[in-house]
Amino acid sequence: MSILVVGSIALDTVETPFGKVEDSPGGSALYFSAAASFFAPVNVVGVVGKDFDFEQIEFLRHRNVDLDGLMIEDGLTFRWGGRYKSDMNRRVTLFTYLNVFEKFSPQIPEHYRDSTYIFLANIDPELQLKVLQTVHNPRLTVLDTMNFWISGKRDALEEVIKRVDVLIVNDEEIRELTGSVRLYSAAAELLTRGPRALVIKKGEHGAILVTKEGYFFSPAFPVENVMDPTGAGDTFAGGFLGYLAAKNSISNGHLKNAVIYGSTVASFVVEDFSFSRLKNITVDDVHRRANMLRAMMAVDVE
Amino acid sequence: MSILVVGSIALDTVETPFGKVEDSPGGSALYFSAAASFFAPVNVVGVVGKDFDFEQIEFLRHRNVDLDGLMIEDGLTFRWGGRYKSDMNRRVTLFTYLNVFEKFSPQIPEHYRDSTYIFLANIDPELQLKVLQTVHNPRLTVLDTMNFWISGKRDALEEVIKRVDVLIVNDEEIRELTGSVRLYSAAAELLTRGPRALVIKKGEHGAILVTKEGYFFSPAFPVENVMDPTGAGDTFAGGFLGYLAAKNSISNGHLKNAVIYGSTVASFVVEDFSFSRLKNITVDDVHRRANMLRAMMAVDVE
Repeated sequence: MSILVVGSIALDTVETPFGKVEDSPGGSALYFSAAASFFAPVNVVGVVGKDFDFEQIEFLRHRNVDLDGLMIEDGLTFRWGGRYKSDMNRRVTLFTYLNVFEKFSPQIPEHYRDSTYIFLANIDPELQLKVLQTVHNPRLTVLDTMNFWISGKRDALEEVIKRVDVLIVNDEEIRELTGSVRLYSAAAELLTRGPRALVIKKGEHGAILVTKEGYFFSPAFPVENVMDPTGAGDTFAGGFLGYLAAKNSISNGHLKNAVIYGSTVASFVVEDFSFSRLKNITVDDVHRRANMLRAMMAVDVE
Repeated sequence: MSILVVGSIALDTVETPFGKVEDSPGGSALYFSAAASFFAPVNVVGVVGKDFDFEQIEFLRHRNVDLDGLMIEDGLTFRWGGRYKSDMNRRVTLFTYLNVFEKFSPQIPEHYRDSTYIFLANIDPELQLKVLQTVHNPRLTVLDTMNFWISGKRDALEEVIKRVDVLIVNDEEIRELTGSVRLYSAAAELLTRGPRALVIKKGEHGAILVTKEGYFFSPAFPVENVMDPTGAGDTFAGGFLGYLAAKNSISNGHLKNAVIYGSTVASFVVEDFSFSRLKNITVDDVHRRANMLRAMMAVDVE
């Protein structure tokens, strides 16, 4: 079962209390791919500039990531710079140069269109809609977005939400989408707009899966040495959708485990800058940590 | 198995976006008792002024709470006033009048000294030490404290920590106690100082039990209508210790369930002001919600 991701590819300059990297590969599509490809083949659609060094993401090819959908345009690759404060929960954006990403218009190669699992990473919802219209008959579509689109392209975003199966959001996005500070009734309301499941990301506090059957709470795996939180959300999405693709199931039980796998892969990526950590672990490392996480939630009745 | 609690008894004036109460019964000892007494008899030690109206806590007597240890002193009862902002996570203290609580020196009645489960609510650590020296042979001692004592009476507090079995703390207190921002290694360090278990309270994000056997994560029960968070921490402690006393067990499995029961009873208390909610539920309501919470953490492997 293959996965399609459409999103950004960036060169990130990141400063944290523990170090700094310059022009390191990043962006939602790559973080997602690095995570999802532990479990299933991934097809990537995105755009880079002529300056992009494919050597830096060579490890992805070895993990069954198809990069045919990467367009190489005249100009420079999207660049983002940010700095994290000591508690790592807040970041300051130092610069954003969209470069070739500014005019990104996803072209889905013919052989990608039968992908069964689709991740619409955080891009313009009009482009997300276009992707949904292009793919043939996906089994599960998952959407990420951000405040910028919620306020700036509300109508298109609502249309995408209507059409996807799973919406991944954080507290703040839920509030902006519904106008309600009551998290759980807001989540219930979002489920009436189309998606069959909501995943509420809470960073170090884990994630909540909300479906019509109820709530499922997953803690975050306890990570002692967070070096760089960049990409954690897209890595979460990659672990989540990768797991479902590997099982080729969208049952409620598998959705719960998918949240655990999302949390697990995200717990690795933050332990180093860029893809350094994800490059050096195997799927067995992921399974081991997922089992540890499940054990930390296990309780016998009485 | 009976429980002893030593702590404050207050008349609280609380304002939240959802209402206001004036001179409502509160304080750590009463919140703890209201919660623990769902499960086991509770002996309370504290002090009130001549103005205290015992009618207001009459419901506690019917739940097997022994109030013989309440001293009635000349003067006024401890009063606290606070206001919660819209997100309910931050509160402003409007006034604190210690009144008779200022000279509180716990006298443990003879028939309380065989209590098997002890909760040292947040009071001067020197008084907490005195309590520990007075009780005979408790099975489990649980300690709560706050920043004020961590910075103000460090030596006495360290001595108490050495002698108790379970330490209940929040993130900030862990940082102050250890000087470390690394939550998990800080928790491990605290376990070397005496306690066999640490409970890290994270409010709406649940609680973590840390023992030498590892971590156990409990989510908070999803409460939609938080009206007043006052007393949630002491109510958590009451549910936690009450459950253990009812089972008369301090096994790791029971400690995990105790965290779930702490979270559960706390989820009720915040749904109304003062004891309004705890007055009107039964232990069966608590069991039902605890079962729901356990179901929200349950996941089948694969």
